[in-house]
Amino acid sequence: MPIETHDIKVDTKGNTDILDLTPRLIEVLNLSELSTGLAGMFVIGSTAGLTTVEYEPGLVNHDLRACFEKIAPEDGEYQHEATWHDDNGHSHIRASLIGPSLTVPFTNGQPILGTWQQIVLIDFDTRQRQRRVVVQLVGE
Amino acid sequence: MPIETHDIKVDTKGNTDILDLTPRLIEVLNLSELSTGLAGMFVIGSTAGLTTVEYEPGLVNHDLRACFEKIAPEDGEYQHEATWHDDNGHSHIRASLIGPSLTVPFTNGQPILGTWQQIVLIDFDTRQRQRRVVVQLVGE
Amino acid sequence: MPIETHDIKVDTKGNTDILDLTPRLIEVLNLSELSTGLAGMFVIGSTAGLTTVEYEPGLVNHDLRACFEKIAPEDGEYQHEATWHDDNGHSHIRASLIGPSLTVPFTNGQPILGTWQQIVLIDFDTRQRQRRVVVQLVGE
Repeated sequence: MPIETHDIKVDTKGNTDILDLTPRLIEVLNLSELSTGLAGMFVIGSTAGLTTVEYEPGLVNHDLRACFEKIAPEDGEYQHEATWHDDNGHSHIRASLIGPSLTVPFTNGQPILGTWQQIVLIDFDTRQRQRRVVVQLVGE
Repeated sequence: MPIETHDIKVDTKGNTDILDLTPRLIEVLNLSELSTGLAGMFVIGSTAGLTTVEYEPGLVNHDLRACFEKIAPEDGEYQHEATWHDDNGHSHIRASLIGPSLTVPFTNGQPILGTWQQIVLIDFDTRQRQRRVVVQLVGE
Repeated sequence: MPIETHDIKVDTKGNTDILDLTPRLIEVLNLSELSTGLAGMFVIGSTAGLTTVEYEPGLVNHDLRACFEKIAPEDGEYQHEATWHDDNGHSHIRASLIGPSLTVPFTNGQPILGTWQQIVLIDFDTRQRQRRVVVQLVGE
């Protein structure tokens, strides 16, 4: 069975930077020979995650960050940091909670999403990163 | 490669209403020509999510709700609400944490699940909604 | 379309035991006839979940556990426990938050992961368990 493997690369600012990947997935689908199927998306690295959100400034710049800060505070105590003299213990915890994978359906070469639902990468690391998201398309 | 795209539509009460979708997935599998494969499930909209849970009243009506209320309280302060004069900031946060997608294996036309493990849609929005879950079947 | 269904079985200690499944997925891929594709992984049961993490002792033995203990404390009050005279209400909540499914890309018979990114099963139940993870491979 044919499967297509594509890459999306994005530059992030880190620190719970939330990027809208929807236009990037549409670019991949435009390049693809498949029109209907399932897009398996997976972000490489242990300090970033994938999910969906209504991409508007209130949620993206404030509310989601505030919730992650409550769940795993930036200045909390982490053995990861004590061991590795690192500063991103909270980044790892947040990323594991969100998870690295997402599967999105598409028909007629377009992802099926709600009007106010966008696919996002959240980079929890404490510095700028270039991130790679592997996109695999299965379908016909 | 053939792929089947199905829809499940459900009416919810909103407000962290948790619905058992397992019988609905079995209905889809009964209609399908595939007997073994992977079911990609995706809920349309940014205020609902998919996961699995033991579907019993204690967890569904009380314990899960209480945990979500702790993580993202209904009467918390959300910029999303200030901006859009809306009341569902907490709904968006909860939905992004759970995520919209789930992939479930099936063999002999039945989903492979634990005895006490059911597939659920959680509708976090603050009103009644009709929800659409896209189910894509890949297999043979 | 051919799809391969494999099983991974692991013995856990329960109590938020975190196990690295990466070598086990590589074993499955070594047995497979497919070299490029998507691995759908699903853990059977409602008190365990799958995600990725940097598998080092600080995160695995301390930081992740501490975060789960904050989100859903072991000695919290759960209706699930009152109803069923059980002690694993927190296990169910934690498992539903993490979710049972993960989809991982592979090429040349190897999973595509970050250098510090491992696939983990987290067993939240309060006793030793044998866990079954269904792995379905789609590709070519």
